[in-house]
Amino acid sequence: MQAVPRPAHHGPGERLQARYDRFKALGLALDMSRGKPCQAQLELSAPMLSILAADDHQAVDGMDCRNYGGLEGLPEARGLFAQVLGVDASEVVVGGNSSLELMYETLVVAFLQGVPGGDRPWCRGPVRFLCPTPGYDRHFAICEHLRIDMIPVDMLEDGPDMDRVEGLVADDDRIKGIWCVPRFSNPTGATVSDAVVRRLAAMRTRARDFRIFWDDAYAVHPLEGTPPRPASILSACRAAGNPDRVYLFGSTSKVTLAGAGVAFMGSSEENLKHLKRSLSVRTIGPDKLNQLRHTRFLQSMSGIEAHMRRHAAILKPKFDAVHRVLEAELGGKGLATWTRPAGGYFISLNTLPGCVSEVVAMAAAAGVKLTPAGSTYPYGRDPLDRNIRIAPSFPAVKELERATELLSICIQEVSRRKGLR
Amino acid sequence: MQAVPRPAHHGPGERLQARYDRFKALGLALDMSRGKPCQAQLELSAPMLSILAADDHQAVDGMDCRNYGGLEGLPEARGLFAQVLGVDASEVVVGGNSSLELMYETLVVAFLQGVPGGDRPWCRGPVRFLCPTPGYDRHFAICEHLRIDMIPVDMLEDGPDMDRVEGLVADDDRIKGIWCVPRFSNPTGATVSDAVVRRLAAMRTRARDFRIFWDDAYAVHPLEGTPPRPASILSACRAAGNPDRVYLFGSTSKVTLAGAGVAFMGSSEENLKHLKRSLSVRTIGPDKLNQLRHTRFLQSMSGIEAHMRRHAAILKPKFDAVHRVLEAELGGKGLATWTRPAGGYFISLNTLPGCVSEVVAMAAAAGVKLTPAGSTYPYGRDPLDRNIRIAPSFPAVKELERATELLSICIQEVSRRKGLR
Repeated sequence: MQAVPRPAHHGPGERLQARYDRFKALGLALDMSRGKPCQAQLELSAPMLSILAADDHQAVDGMDCRNYGGLEGLPEARGLFAQVLGVDASEVVVGGNSSLELMYETLVVAFLQGVPGGDRPWCRGPVRFLCPTPGYDRHFAICEHLRIDMIPVDMLEDGPDMDRVEGLVADDDRIKGIWCVPRFSNPTGATVSDAVVRRLAAMRTRARDFRIFWDDAYAVHPLEGTPPRPASILSACRAAGNPDRVYLFGSTSKVTLAGAGVAFMGSSEENLKHLKRSLSVRTIGPDKLNQLRHTRFLQSMSGIEAHMRRHAAILKPKFDAVHRVLEAELGGKGLATWTRPAGGYFISLNTLPGCVSEVVAMAAAAGVKLTPAGSTYPYGRDPLDRNIRIAPSFPAVKELERATELLSICIQEVSRRKGLR
Repeated sequence: MQAVPRPAHHGPGERLQARYDRFKALGLALDMSRGKPCQAQLELSAPMLSILAADDHQAVDGMDCRNYGGLEGLPEARGLFAQVLGVDASEVVVGGNSSLELMYETLVVAFLQGVPGGDRPWCRGPVRFLCPTPGYDRHFAICEHLRIDMIPVDMLEDGPDMDRVEGLVADDDRIKGIWCVPRFSNPTGATVSDAVVRRLAAMRTRARDFRIFWDDAYAVHPLEGTPPRPASILSACRAAGNPDRVYLFGSTSKVTLAGAGVAFMGSSEENLKHLKRSLSVRTIGPDKLNQLRHTRFLQSMSGIEAHMRRHAAILKPKFDAVHRVLEAELGGKGLATWTRPAGGYFISLNTLPGCVSEVVAMAAAAGVKLTPAGSTYPYGRDPLDRNIRIAPSFPAVKELERATELLSICIQEVSRRKGLR
């Protein structure tokens, strides 16, 4: 990659537009838009692809993984991924390659069949969901597709704004659910506190068939160390007398391979029994060989943790690079704030209100693709037009530095044009 | 396995009950209930499991199959499986491991979003489907689960009874679809004629959003030779001015591995565009590595055909064994008729009316599991209580001979008890 030519002395006097124009002249093509693992991360799982010998296809219960059957997943896969979610093996189903698909399917079952404790399928009446924001665009896309009315609530440093959540669910029986990414949340990196877990589990909901969609996508994804595990939401729900309130989701998409991982979900046995009725109509069983590849390769929870430390060794320098450049370019200027997550895949950055659409467009014009403005909000509408999700995983460190520098220039220049600096 | 002790001379004088009792004393445990490939069939695809070297993960378009993306499947997989369905690559989506799941999902989209040409989601009103019988129990299970009212129509030797089909769909706008297994149908083995294809494509339907669910599960599964391909239903629909009338489905579950195959579907570009909107909300993409394994292993349509000849070499002697014993035990007695399919996975047997429930129970009591009586009919109700689906693929030839002998004894004994012989 070409170096960006810089004047010998550049300081506050240098014109932002000139720096931007020099970037633009480079014809960059950098993508910070999606939480996509990089090559080096995918290589970590290379041995998994050839781990099954031609005669290695039997699960611990003797099942031939090449043949039909095994609706709820291999016993050893259920046992392993139960530990990721912090539930019992009997409370887990292991499926195909996409946890998003499990979430969608769980909603489809609720829409067409209802859920335990409810009195009718959700498609028979209006359905509303609470959406902590900024949040994950694909959660919002599912809601929009299913015509679920989305109500934004603020995502705070310890989880969703519970005062507001409790107020809303107590009053409105159309509110059937809430999304939550409990650990290293997308995009802020926040992890729920035990107090939030307990309040979500115990709060009084007007809808008797209210559900928490607990997308634990970054359950084993710290950038360093071994952070404490939040209180178990499934246990907390049980303790609070709401045993069927939560569905937990996870996958190995960002553990092994993004396109060929294994997805799993956890819930009460009552909920799983109900879901399995639909599941048994939908399919004869998941790809058990891929589950076997995973259990052979990852082996145990400590095997997963060791593997994730290798991911962290690749990712941490990338997050550090983004933070370093943001600090150098924007630190102390009052033009933006950003999160410093201890794990996960994203940095959430807020500009001053009203700037982000222009910043994203300006960066795109110079060859740096960011997640579209507004994506971290329901219906793509960021009410303050200020949030950007930065995804540092895919580009190389040098590219990230350059892209973040350009982003910082755009933020300063847009703020300046708007008379905000 | 123990030999069944037989008297030196057994003839019409031998008491059926005595033969049955001797079988029962053997304590057999044979399963002819599901169309499940046997070990030797699964072994045919053993090389596929290690076909991807650690650095072999790139599709023809350069996509890294380990990472996210590729919603509609790999270009080479679409190209290959399009040939199985007899459509263009642009008219195919390649998904996960289950064609049943693709059918279910297609119905879910119709229920929650509607289909092109329709004026509302199907969940807003009553939905009826025509079900050729005897037919596939899992099609009927999907309908029952989605509360689709099932109307049986006879499956004849050249496909569904079109006189009746045409009469029904012309009059009732609640009839939104028909199931059809066009080649080597489950369970009769019938293949649709070109005339039936053209009538299905051209018939006037009262419902503007009528759909044919064309489950081509046995598209490449002849027991010998290369049978002629039926006329293309997609082309026939286009020619008749009903371009969006049909969804085609297929999979490699009975080509490579039943639990770890690849499923695919074909339809008009308009239908696929509509489905892909839902698909893109549901998942980021299918397991592309498994698709790559399949294209590397099967290579071409002639590669698939050569592979299927190896399956046929295993299956044909099993079908022959069942026919041999049925002919020897029941031939000329007027107690049962059965199909002699040229492909597929099943033999459909009809007893005299009113006998099958007892026959199945009696066989089960002697250790031979058959598909439950009634399963080949909607709601498990065989109006004449006479159809059994025999699945010869899984047991060994010797076991099949024994199980078929027992079945034949049960048919004779139940007929005798009912005064029918």
